[in-house]
Amino acid sequence: MTQSIIDVSCRFLAQNDKICLVCHASPDGDTVGGAFGLFYALKSLGKSVYVESFDGFPEKFRYLYPDNMEKFEPKHYVTVDVADVGLLGDCQKNLSFSLCIDHHEKNSIDARYKCVDSGAAATCEIIYSIVKHLGVKISRQIANCLYTGISTDTGCFRFSNTTPQTHKIAAELIESGAKSCEINFRLFEQKTKARLKLESLILKNLEYYFGDRCAIVFVTRDMVRQAGASETDFDEIASIARSPIDVLIGISAREVENCQYKVSVRSNQGASALNVCKFFGGGGHKMAAGFKISGDIETIKEKILQKVYEEIIH
Amino acid sequence: MTQSIIDVSCRFLAQNDKICLVCHASPDGDTVGGAFGLFYALKSLGKSVYVESFDGFPEKFRYLYPDNMEKFEPKHYVTVDVADVGLLGDCQKNLSFSLCIDHHEKNSIDARYKCVDSGAAATCEIIYSIVKHLGVKISRQIANCLYTGISTDTGCFRFSNTTPQTHKIAAELIESGAKSCEINFRLFEQKTKARLKLESLILKNLEYYFGDRCAIVFVTRDMVRQAGASETDFDEIASIARSPIDVLIGISAREVENCQYKVSVRSNQGASALNVCKFFGGGGHKMAAGFKISGDIETIKEKILQKVYEEIIH
Repeated sequence: MTQSIIDVSCRFLAQNDKICLVCHASPDGDTVGGAFGLFYALKSLGKSVYVESFDGFPEKFRYLYPDNMEKFEPKHYVTVDVADVGLLGDCQKNLSFSLCIDHHEKNSIDARYKCVDSGAAATCEIIYSIVKHLGVKISRQIANCLYTGISTDTGCFRFSNTTPQTHKIAAELIESGAKSCEINFRLFEQKTKARLKLESLILKNLEYYFGDRCAIVFVTRDMVRQAGASETDFDEIASIARSPIDVLIGISAREVENCQYKVSVRSNQGASALNVCKFFGGGGHKMAAGFKISGDIETIKEKILQKVYEEIIH
Repeated sequence: MTQSIIDVSCRFLAQNDKICLVCHASPDGDTVGGAFGLFYALKSLGKSVYVESFDGFPEKFRYLYPDNMEKFEPKHYVTVDVADVGLLGDCQKNLSFSLCIDHHEKNSIDARYKCVDSGAAATCEIIYSIVKHLGVKISRQIANCLYTGISTDTGCFRFSNTTPQTHKIAAELIESGAKSCEINFRLFEQKTKARLKLESLILKNLEYYFGDRCAIVFVTRDMVRQAGASETDFDEIASIARSPIDVLIGISAREVENCQYKVSVRSNQGASALNVCKFFGGGGHKMAAGFKISGDIETIKEKILQKVYEEIIH
């Protein structure tokens, strides 16, 4: 990202007051961490600022936000980690945005200033640059916020978006007091009882094909009921089918309506999940793609396996 | 670690030749990555060097070691990540060691030079300093080796041994070409079918007590047979019982002989696993401890839960 975008964004933030920071729907660690990281930084500069999330703030991130935030009529709205207005609440969609801070490759927010860098692993990496450029010392609170966003969006430094810069920022955040060990425990190890039951059922029902090079599981509504799982329990669940050692293509088909399935395909070692999904009218990335399909389990399974066979035996 | 220990170790390595690097039993990513990181560095200096592991090199680390290594009568033995001679093969125990490179808190290896730093998250952090100090450029091969060790021993930067220095080294290793994403996939996501079946059974049999503040599971020999699991499939399995969201103490009791159990206790949020284990004659750390006990499941469970109750309700 060019330094000038950071310059412009910081000049705007430094020269203005009464700012409302806006998070996206189903708030994750990057939007919540980024918004509150910037919130504490602007507070330390004596500004009036609050964070708005029409979807609320998850209890999981309770350690990031204050008990109370004083609200006021904002003069400026700043989006944090929001790629599109479709990710905002109805009463937020028509707001006029002064600044948009984001790292998504496609960002369609209409804002006066746009501070978007798709090379950043997390929006929190960009907020880190802004906070430093504003001359604010990274407090322990800010460090916890930014570390949370970075660890969330990189899967704890596992994903391919992790760069040397990501690690350098992490080093400084830990030096500034980020409780990395506790944060990662909350983000990646702690799970609800329902999630754990769901994982148990998924692992039990995983079927292997083509000499273990393909694993497939159908997550029926009955299984979800049995586990007592809710929407938030499905986070990254599709990766389970790719985890067996010889699997090139892992498939999770989740029943969303009666006999309607949302299929997530994950691949490994050069196999293309995208090729499989394109055939069924879906899309995504090479190693993570998806599509929707209707029918009975056996027919769907046969169709998918036929396509997987063509992809891995070529 | 004082720079002088690195100085002395590097002087020894620079001035000598015909070196055999020795790994510990049940070789993990740190001993294999550390030994081969140093192997490639010494090779680049034109030295005769090979790596010895009496337990072999796991297939999991196939990307780290060469197809062939020329063996010879070594003049010097250097241990890598070996805390004690008990971790060596019978024919290695009585060797005379020239240099010992390790990061374990208690290191009892008798060597001419000891390069031990318990503040390092991994032995590979120390090898990194040595390689740099030897003036060797970190090649992609060396970077993959050292990254593997660091990621292994920090649980991919999750454990409390992770320091700012750990992240700074990781940044440089990725800059030098370490394939961090592929390495972490191999280390933390890929699992054997047997391991996944075992996880499914463990999750299914997890029982909750005291308002979900304690979770306990008995891993019987029957379950292990059913999953087809072997010794290597038990790595970090004890942490599953600590993962449910409200759990303060998680217990896994693995049947090792008929009605004999090896109990692993993990705790969270200030609760002490060690207190529980000490009562049964065991030991360990505050958050991770263990003990052995014999008897039938119901009696053992009752005894353990009584002690857990005292620990968490006080």
